[in-house]
Amino acid sequence: DPMPTSFLGSALRGTFFFIFGLWWSVRYPLKYLRWKANAESQPSHGIQRVEFFEGAVKAFFALAGILVEQFVPAGPHLQLYSPETHSWTDLTHWHYTTIYFFFLLSGIVDVVSHSPLKLPLGLDRLSLSVALFIEVCFHDYSDAALDYHLHSLLAMAIFAGALSALLEVFLRDHVILEIFRTSSFLLQGSWLWQIGFVLSPPWGGPGWDQTDRSNFTFLTMCFCWHYAGALAVLTANSAASRWYVGERGPRGVPAPCTSWDGQE
Amino acid sequence: DPMPTSFLGSALRGTFFFIFGLWWSVRYPLKYLRWKANAESQPSHGIQRVEFFEGAVKAFFALAGILVEQFVPAGPHLQLYSPETHSWTDLTHWHYTTIYFFFLLSGIVDVVSHSPLKLPLGLDRLSLSVALFIEVCFHDYSDAALDYHLHSLLAMAIFAGALSALLEVFLRDHVILEIFRTSSFLLQGSWLWQIGFVLSPPWGGPGWDQTDRSNFTFLTMCFCWHYAGALAVLTANSAASRWYVGERGPRGVPAPCTSWDGQE
Amino acid sequence: DPMPTSFLGSALRGTFFFIFGLWWSVRYPLKYLRWKANAESQPSHGIQRVEFFEGAVKAFFALAGILVEQFVPAGPHLQLYSPETHSWTDLTHWHYTTIYFFFLLSGIVDVVSHSPLKLPLGLDRLSLSVALFIEVCFHDYSDAALDYHLHSLLAMAIFAGALSALLEVFLRDHVILEIFRTSSFLLQGSWLWQIGFVLSPPWGGPGWDQTDRSNFTFLTMCFCWHYAGALAVLTANSAASRWYVGERGPRGVPAPCTSWDGQE
Amino acid sequence: DPMPTSFLGSALRGTFFFIFGLWWSVRYPLKYLRWKANAESQPSHGIQRVEFFEGAVKAFFALAGILVEQFVPAGPHLQLYSPETHSWTDLTHWHYTTIYFFFLLSGIVDVVSHSPLKLPLGLDRLSLSVALFIEVCFHDYSDAALDYHLHSLLAMAIFAGALSALLEVFLRDHVILEIFRTSSFLLQGSWLWQIGFVLSPPWGGPGWDQTDRSNFTFLTMCFCWHYAGALAVLTANSAASRWYVGERGPRGVPAPCTSWDGQE
Repeated sequence: DPMPTSFLGSALRGTFFFIFGLWWSVRYPLKYLRWKANAESQPSHGIQRVEFFEGAVKAFFALAGILVEQFVPAGPHLQLYSPETHSWTDLTHWHYTTIYFFFLLSGIVDVVSHSPLKLPLGLDRLSLSVALFIEVCFHDYSDAALDYHLHSLLAMAIFAGALSALLEVFLRDHVILEIFRTSSFLLQGSWLWQIGFVLSPPWGGPGWDQTDRSNFTFLTMCFCWHYAGALAVLTANSAASRWYVGERGPRGVPAPCTSWDGQE
Repeated sequence: DPMPTSFLGSALRGTFFFIFGLWWSVRYPLKYLRWKANAESQPSHGIQRVEFFEGAVKAFFALAGILVEQFVPAGPHLQLYSPETHSWTDLTHWHYTTIYFFFLLSGIVDVVSHSPLKLPLGLDRLSLSVALFIEVCFHDYSDAALDYHLHSLLAMAIFAGALSALLEVFLRDHVILEIFRTSSFLLQGSWLWQIGFVLSPPWGGPGWDQTDRSNFTFLTMCFCWHYAGALAVLTANSAASRWYVGERGPRGVPAPCTSWDGQE
Repeated sequence: DPMPTSFLGSALRGTFFFIFGLWWSVRYPLKYLRWKANAESQPSHGIQRVEFFEGAVKAFFALAGILVEQFVPAGPHLQLYSPETHSWTDLTHWHYTTIYFFFLLSGIVDVVSHSPLKLPLGLDRLSLSVALFIEVCFHDYSDAALDYHLHSLLAMAIFAGALSALLEVFLRDHVILEIFRTSSFLLQGSWLWQIGFVLSPPWGGPGWDQTDRSNFTFLTMCFCWHYAGALAVLTANSAASRWYVGERGPRGVPAPCTSWDGQE
Repeated sequence: DPMPTSFLGSALRGTFFFIFGLWWSVRYPLKYLRWKANAESQPSHGIQRVEFFEGAVKAFFALAGILVEQFVPAGPHLQLYSPETHSWTDLTHWHYTTIYFFFLLSGIVDVVSHSPLKLPLGLDRLSLSVALFIEVCFHDYSDAALDYHLHSLLAMAIFAGALSALLEVFLRDHVILEIFRTSSFLLQGSWLWQIGFVLSPPWGGPGWDQTDRSNFTFLTMCFCWHYAGALAVLTANSAASRWYVGERGPRGVPAPCTSWDGQE
């Protein structure tokens, strides 16, 4: 078994957050440019459709995650208590199921918020914030020192995103908050990959030395470099969006959305 | 004695918070729908009467709680120092008396806020917030590990409610904050029942194993499920309110309040 | 020596904070009533004179405190390093000198803010907040358990006041924040008296048992009762102000200030 | 070697922050006076040029710091892993390189914000805040008790500045926040000098006694005195600015900027 499950799990989770970060790093700069081009315009149907679509993708991924956690061969298959051993089944799978469930909920709230059945504005941000707070508060730490250190750094990235989403409940469409949330998602995504490589390398082997102090210092720096990388990705995507808009003129900004609100 | 006092106490406290959560999960969606229907309208006498009534019920429950804590057979009967043992009487009863006293105060402030003698707006939310902060800061934790874990989770629910009420001092009538406060009350209510079942089951017996680590993980997840349940209750009640209003038309929204403000 | 210095010090500090709390519990309700009576009026010269006077009293008390700490017989007499013992002199006196210095600064800022040389609005609240944060961060805790517990509770009262003053930088003249700050000063004042009685009773004797757990629980409750007492004082003074204004009519509100702004 | 590197490093870092504090303690009072003199005026080109220049200086210092850390004789010369010892090279230099990198980034954002390619307002404050948070979170503490204490106090100064810069994202051009940030930079600067003197005196010798408790108390007070000193510097510079403006009349306020916006 050259590729242990925990690497795969960490990498898949990381990919989910990284893709969302990438998507937002294109979407929010475009939204900001469009808003600057015609400051008086209302949020159009186009944006609402994009958020509807985002919510659906989030809900789909979360549901897929729940099903995978439950029905992998080693999973609990929806069983919580094992009668033969008179104890709980392996609760790690249930743990991730619970966390994914709140992301599923957040996706559903996004979808319903932008359906005709309008919910109060800000409920979508609150539900994202709740999902992230639940991810950060109820993460299960191993007792191993390096594992704990890596997950503490992860917790900082998640917490930054949760706080940013919470502030967006009150300061909706604040471009700085949206950019900061985007960077925190990119950081969380790439850091989950890093955790996978450090704790259970895909080429097998025992992972890094849990007792070497210099590994701690190195990984702390590494976390900062991941953030620098996240900011580089964000900058590159923003610049590309700006260049694309500059090429096509301000009228071109809503282009990727035109297909969505053709009926307007 | 098949049903120990501490289960009863926990369940009664839980019921109090759950009933308030249930009531708000009907009231706030209706208020939001009414506000959307005629955005220009002032908060009417009807709403003020409802808040007056809420305060009176809160004060009544708190006063009842104080009397019960003091005058149950094992209670201190308002005695603080026991001259025969030269020590304090059992301070647990006094502890709950103190906590209930601040809820009594919060109820009285609600009542007075909506009396002709108008207090500054926001004092009712501040007094609720103070009562919740006192509940969370001065809760007496047992030294037993599982007990401590359960009460830490409870503290999170109370703290969320306290913070939400504090923000409402500055952002009054913010529907997201009201919904969040409602969900925190529902969570606190159902979690107090859960604590009762885990630590002192009503069918007797010794409670759960305080040393089994998997119980900790299970109860952490359980807390998340309680929150999911609270959100489900909130959603169901909101949907029912919306359906009820949809049946009767926007004019029907203030219906449950009409009897209150007939003199308008 | 029946009345040890530390009781006297604690009581004098407590009196300072309590007097400020009492004064504000009259001033802020009157200000609120005046503001309600004629909502359009600007903050008059009268109020500015009162704040000038408050700052002067604060600075005077702080300066007196500094002089007393330095020049009591056991004090350091402005000497920091003792050449004969080759060590620092007793730093406790210097510690209080430092804390008082920031209250002196806050008083001076109050005075200068309301002089013709106008400072930016909010600097007076910021300087009060800084003084309180320095009081809370740099308090010297004894290692004795009960001492530590009492000072932790004190720190909560100071912190509440500091946070409230900090918020007032951004939300100036917010009546709820002013009332909350007032209640925190009353609490801090009465709790400093309580600390004096517990740790070094004025009638001599060894203070309370530092190891009895029930003392901890009792004093925690006691802290809540002090807060209830502070709220009672605040309510009584507000009611008295309102009654006084009701007797004299809205024109009567500025009465206590009339003598100050006779030249208006 | 009478002047060990760590003193020099601490002193150079301190000088950087102190110079920025000094510069702001002149700039922000002038800006406030100008704003008071003609409240209706927009932020002119002059101010934007100053911020451009500030960003360039910040970026230059940060880049210089990175190069010095990497290419001093004992530095890693961009090498992260030493193949001969099969371990990481000395990571302290890399640590400072990482911290300086985020200040470099903050400088670049300042420069780009005020270039024709306009970034969203507030991104410059966010990037400064991120740099300070990274400085405070990822500082490497020694295990020695006094060292830890000194760096905890430093962390408070940095954290105050980071929080202030974060608030400025939302409350831009708030004079109180600008003054507070200035005072935190002055404090951080002078405290870095103090740390240098205590831990590695430039005249050689072993540094202060790490085990003497009275040193801890003394240095805590010393930190407060540094803050008092920072406030004194700030007050003196503000007073000098005001006097200078008073001499030249309100028209004189933009004087130091006139050379910058001659083309207006």
